[in-house]
Amino acid sequence: MSELRRDPIGGRWVIVDTDNPAKPQDYDCEPVVLKGGVCPFCYGNESMTPIEIEVIREPGTSPNFSGWQVRTIPNKFPALQIEGELDRRPVGMYDMQNGVGAHEVIIETPYHAKDISDLTTEEVQNFLLMYCRRAIDLAKDKRFKYIMIFKNYGAAAGASMEHPHTQLIALPMVPKNVAEEIKGAHDYFEYRERCIFCDIIRQETQEKDRIISENKYFIAFCPFVSRFPFEIWIMPKKHNPRFCQLTIDEMPFLAEILRDTIIKVKKVFPHLSYNYIIHSSPINDDSISDGYHWHIEFMPKLTRVAGFEWGSGFYLVGTPPEIAAEYLRK
Amino acid sequence: MSELRRDPIGGRWVIVDTDNPAKPQDYDCEPVVLKGGVCPFCYGNESMTPIEIEVIREPGTSPNFSGWQVRTIPNKFPALQIEGELDRRPVGMYDMQNGVGAHEVIIETPYHAKDISDLTTEEVQNFLLMYCRRAIDLAKDKRFKYIMIFKNYGAAAGASMEHPHTQLIALPMVPKNVAEEIKGAHDYFEYRERCIFCDIIRQETQEKDRIISENKYFIAFCPFVSRFPFEIWIMPKKHNPRFCQLTIDEMPFLAEILRDTIIKVKKVFPHLSYNYIIHSSPINDDSISDGYHWHIEFMPKLTRVAGFEWGSGFYLVGTPPEIAAEYLRK
Repeated sequence: MSELRRDPIGGRWVIVDTDNPAKPQDYDCEPVVLKGGVCPFCYGNESMTPIEIEVIREPGTSPNFSGWQVRTIPNKFPALQIEGELDRRPVGMYDMQNGVGAHEVIIETPYHAKDISDLTTEEVQNFLLMYCRRAIDLAKDKRFKYIMIFKNYGAAAGASMEHPHTQLIALPMVPKNVAEEIKGAHDYFEYRERCIFCDIIRQETQEKDRIISENKYFIAFCPFVSRFPFEIWIMPKKHNPRFCQLTIDEMPFLAEILRDTIIKVKKVFPHLSYNYIIHSSPINDDSISDGYHWHIEFMPKLTRVAGFEWGSGFYLVGTPPEIAAEYLRK
Repeated sequence: MSELRRDPIGGRWVIVDTDNPAKPQDYDCEPVVLKGGVCPFCYGNESMTPIEIEVIREPGTSPNFSGWQVRTIPNKFPALQIEGELDRRPVGMYDMQNGVGAHEVIIETPYHAKDISDLTTEEVQNFLLMYCRRAIDLAKDKRFKYIMIFKNYGAAAGASMEHPHTQLIALPMVPKNVAEEIKGAHDYFEYRERCIFCDIIRQETQEKDRIISENKYFIAFCPFVSRFPFEIWIMPKKHNPRFCQLTIDEMPFLAEILRDTIIKVKKVFPHLSYNYIIHSSPINDDSISDGYHWHIEFMPKLTRVAGFEWGSGFYLVGTPPEIAAEYLRK
């Protein structure tokens, strides 16, 4: 018999196949294939992109030319635009507002074909530092309520560019999924006067079987209520609501565990597409951060979401997280 | 500038690209390709499936042999199992219960290669009738709180079998997405003493530009807050919380509009994969059906859901529904 498990944060249920757990080779995942061609994110093609917003580059090199290590540019086809008024208004019974926001692209490395697992820890640290800097800068704009940092790697995971990059979208409202997570964490905090994420770390540390790795400041584990097989959360051990409040001290440890996690996943699934998302507290609103705890949710693209998931919000998970963690630790 | 639109039912926001709307040819959708091979859902292979639960068949033919028009069988690899106790229990700070439920497959037609658009209205009516019958039968089991009827067509939409079929899952709890929709509709009803879905029909009928087609009892339109490009909702004009309370009178009109919708969509996207889901009120709980109104949500599989959507619950819609409806009406 399968198990129904309930997410303690948002109340979502998942169906975990504990009877006939799927093995890694049972997943028919679409491999990442690099097609090559002219890439606007590569060295020498800087003029093909909008002008850089922020950059980490070799001393003596010029803006918008080669010599950079990490480069942030505006998205050439932005979902939202930085100029304009929000202008919220009704359309009959509906609501709308202008698409005001920011949409930036962080090019993580000059190397077209290097995934995070192929970079050095220092290189990973560089682009994580860029994530922080951009988040801090955009939070100064009082129109924005949330900054979402996410990476799509591989066409199957929705990446339209091959060259390793992360996107950052600043939104004029807190998105529904985030608001629900914040509310779940807040309700738990009100009831128990403890952070739900800190409690999750405690329980995972006690049970051990879902943990993949840990270092001084971070822990990586397959969550009890994974929505996707081989889903991984990377969480700071010290309570901290906001990603951009990460300390200089913690940064190399985050780089290390993120790189190490992707190395481990790629040992099991060498040509994997994936998404990861940084979950952090809303900005310009201190009232609702109580009991929230930033973390990274890493989602390998092994299955396709179908009608049942869309309709119900239930997820079918073929490999229980306990077993997934075992494969990943090996 | 793009538009941010807010779903009046659940409060979800979507970003609609009204500036540079994507044309049908801009979508690089994975075509449905039939690989053939031995199919357990085809005539003559009835012994390859579990024993039929309910069937519409030619008089004089025997159960579990050829001669059927629509056939319902238990899913051979069920997500949930019909036997057993729910046995809800804690696991440390988490919750779980046994995977008790029902998981059935409705084989819509004996023809392996016929999509709904290739069937006659009578054939479509037959499998819709089967949906109703199975929903009514399963609702008698008091352990179940929700019956989800959904179809995945094409591998890109998550179908693991090529032969046209629909799945039915009976769940021991109301799924999160449904509960949110019910609550949204209920809150609107409390506030206005009107059904939000009836109001949506009124507004769409007034504005006209998102309507694709209508008949005596049903209306098909691209919702103002589509989450996916070319998303379509089919809704009964008469207020009715439950799909299985459909009248005999309405049945041929539903068959007609469903078939016609898929014909229209396939004129624009000939090899499309898609999902549709029947949204209906929970069962064995009359308290929360006020202001709910059953409908079908049809989702063409034209784009891939990526990190931003997973993290935020926001959706990026490349073709505004007004323009999608125009393509579909042509």
